[in-house]
Amino acid sequence: MKKTDVLVVGGSAAGVTAASVSKMKNPDKDVLIIRKEEKVMIPCGIPYIFGTVETTEKNILPDTGLENAGINILVGDVVDINVNENYCILANGEEISYEKIIISTGSTPLVPKWLKGKELNNVFVIPKNKVYLDDFQKRIKDKKDIVVVGAGFIGVEVADEINKTGKNVTLVEKLPQILGLAFDKEFADEGEQIIKSRGVNVITGTGIKEILGQENVTGVLLEDGQEIAADAVVLSMGYVPNTKLAIKSGLEINERGFIKVDEYLRTNKADVFATGDCAEKKDYFTRKTCSTMLASTACAESRVVGFNLYKLSTPRCFGGTIAIYSTAIGNTAFATAGMTETLALKEGFEIVTGIFQGPDKHPGSLPGTHTQMIKLIASKETRILLGGEIMGGISSGELINVIGLAIENKMTLSSLITSQIGTHPLLTGSPVGYPLIKAAEMACKKIVLKKTELEKVLV
Amino acid sequence: MKKTDVLVVGGSAAGVTAASVSKMKNPDKDVLIIRKEEKVMIPCGIPYIFGTVETTEKNILPDTGLENAGINILVGDVVDINVNENYCILANGEEISYEKIIISTGSTPLVPKWLKGKELNNVFVIPKNKVYLDDFQKRIKDKKDIVVVGAGFIGVEVADEINKTGKNVTLVEKLPQILGLAFDKEFADEGEQIIKSRGVNVITGTGIKEILGQENVTGVLLEDGQEIAADAVVLSMGYVPNTKLAIKSGLEINERGFIKVDEYLRTNKADVFATGDCAEKKDYFTRKTCSTMLASTACAESRVVGFNLYKLSTPRCFGGTIAIYSTAIGNTAFATAGMTETLALKEGFEIVTGIFQGPDKHPGSLPGTHTQMIKLIASKETRILLGGEIMGGISSGELINVIGLAIENKMTLSSLITSQIGTHPLLTGSPVGYPLIKAAEMACKKIVLKKTELEKVLV
Repeated sequence: MKKTDVLVVGGSAAGVTAASVSKMKNPDKDVLIIRKEEKVMIPCGIPYIFGTVETTEKNILPDTGLENAGINILVGDVVDINVNENYCILANGEEISYEKIIISTGSTPLVPKWLKGKELNNVFVIPKNKVYLDDFQKRIKDKKDIVVVGAGFIGVEVADEINKTGKNVTLVEKLPQILGLAFDKEFADEGEQIIKSRGVNVITGTGIKEILGQENVTGVLLEDGQEIAADAVVLSMGYVPNTKLAIKSGLEINERGFIKVDEYLRTNKADVFATGDCAEKKDYFTRKTCSTMLASTACAESRVVGFNLYKLSTPRCFGGTIAIYSTAIGNTAFATAGMTETLALKEGFEIVTGIFQGPDKHPGSLPGTHTQMIKLIASKETRILLGGEIMGGISSGELINVIGLAIENKMTLSSLITSQIGTHPLLTGSPVGYPLIKAAEMACKKIVLKKTELEKVLV
Repeated sequence: MKKTDVLVVGGSAAGVTAASVSKMKNPDKDVLIIRKEEKVMIPCGIPYIFGTVETTEKNILPDTGLENAGINILVGDVVDINVNENYCILANGEEISYEKIIISTGSTPLVPKWLKGKELNNVFVIPKNKVYLDDFQKRIKDKKDIVVVGAGFIGVEVADEINKTGKNVTLVEKLPQILGLAFDKEFADEGEQIIKSRGVNVITGTGIKEILGQENVTGVLLEDGQEIAADAVVLSMGYVPNTKLAIKSGLEINERGFIKVDEYLRTNKADVFATGDCAEKKDYFTRKTCSTMLASTACAESRVVGFNLYKLSTPRCFGGTIAIYSTAIGNTAFATAGMTETLALKEGFEIVTGIFQGPDKHPGSLPGTHTQMIKLIASKETRILLGGEIMGGISSGELINVIGLAIENKMTLSSLITSQIGTHPLLTGSPVGYPLIKAAEMACKKIVLKKTELEKVLV
């Protein structure tokens, strides 16, 4: 029987990172990735193949880093794992033994069973599969009216990119706002305005009821009775974890269909870890299981796996997903970390919020200046930061990581306000009016004002 | 006698921020800023008036925020403070009493006493003074050959901006590299290459000996004997704290000439605080006094002042400057936080470093992608992060704040590696190859490899 020390099943972001960090921590161990795909797509780059990047060929996760690190790659299909005797079986009958196995089988697009017409020609989903995407891209070329169903990040990005190629795109969302639950209304509304101004039709507050057509798609019927003509439909209604292999191998699955893991990403079987979209997620604050799927969360989990594979490396365990992410519509970025105001209130937190708007360069008269709007959500009792949202220019993508790190370090509003930051006219807001700190000040001000009013009453 | 509750002397970044945060924490107190200038310059924007921003008028710190917060502004010159009876005296004889006074008198350009020719016509410095700068800008208009002496941030920025207007600019630096001591050689060398490619002449490793000319400047003589023709010279040789008022008022001054303060920014006299360029600075790690002057550090100090003005707000004290800052040459940004490798070694730290280079978008084929080079410096024993340097695109200005916050939270290499970050194709590096995390991995790898080799020897 062929053998390896560390076996990673799946070669997307989670698998690649788990393999790299495992090898880094254990340079004497053999690490093998088994993946189904010849060429792996950069997951977050997929929406951009429809416009900006143009082709899947320019969106490939290169193998160079893995090869340089001495990690082995095998293209194959793992169909079973003997978790008691530590070996796996491939579709071609080959068996490979391991000391540690990491399951990072990812996720596939959700297509609701009840959705009539889902099997019609020119109904597409957005999987992490180059062969499928190449065909999708070819077939959509001569289409004119495209309906994108679901306005989470991927739906918004795909709609905007397809719209760039001159097609008539309609984005349909069941929720009252686009960008899902990741943003409060003031941010989602701005996003909707921008994407509309770019020519995308947006319909919110009503979901899809049925896909219309005989052989080929001709349109969609919405819950509110509207019919929209379409010669192609893109379903972006969420993703489900790939757990077929895990289930067959006897791993425990949670109530949301993810592989159950502990904070070291260990499954219920010895030497078996799971990471990425297929692995159980818990929310950082509510401590409830959730269905967040982000390549960045996946990579953070995989690094924890790598650090804890042979010996536990306390206290580096994974404390739940903060769900830090960002997107861009035109030259405006939207970024979020932790809880929104809406979610925090719904979950029963007593909160205080602060919002501030200012230029992202200083003076604001500098060319390329973008307005930055930042909202912070904090616990009223402890002042600990619970979440943040940004709308701004290109630097928002890194600025949200400042907020993410503040959350991960359980910083309070006052510790954030008095933190040291660096600023530069061409690169950031001003040191005096740095929007992140000002937003924290705005939140603090509410607490202070409340107190002062209280004192007046008591006197 | 006129009275106020909180009196702030000086209206630049430090003063404005101290006033704002004091008012926020104490909404019932009257806050008054007394400043010399009718219009205040945005300090970090000053180099850009020579090119990008064009005029000082577009680089003014607006009073709107102060006015909206109900803060009073008086243009005047405080010439003495009676720190025992809590009142100050203005040049016009007026007296104003206070409960708390905050001194934020800033700094002025250093012109060495020994420098022959410093009083010649067309020898300039770069003060935060609109009247002076307007005259400087007018007089430099018809000049052709400009020598800028001193290649710290301000020297580099001013040289690059003046160069943009088509003049022949030579930048002279006594140290072996430009960008002062804030960067290790690999970054400074890149910076020098870029600024040279933009047409600026750069001479390093030799300082200025004398300014040549009779009435008007005709050139400079360098320490190595070279003469450079010039019809204008800009001295950017550092800044000295403005402490005349503090000395006259009996405040204690440290060995570097700064007003002595404790970690709450309190001076040796009751009710008297000092903040910003005039206040004593300690290095975050070495605990030695230093001469760092940054608007961003000033603002962080001023927020600490505001929080501790009437009642101490533990544990929000100022733990020493991390010196987080950034600049840009063309479309390449340079950013730094904490200690460089060179400084850390010089100060006696046992360190490990990691460096990584990758695209700042993903895939790297996206338009506008810039290479990001990140270096991290950490303690070998505790793995605690000591510093970081970035060369990259526009997002570097916020990314350095991620590093700054990691330093301020005393994060270790492994806690940084397993931190959650957010990524997006158009906004950041990839989750798999996020350069900040990869640089931490590179540093960790060195430690692990050393250990493995050690184990081999022991077996």
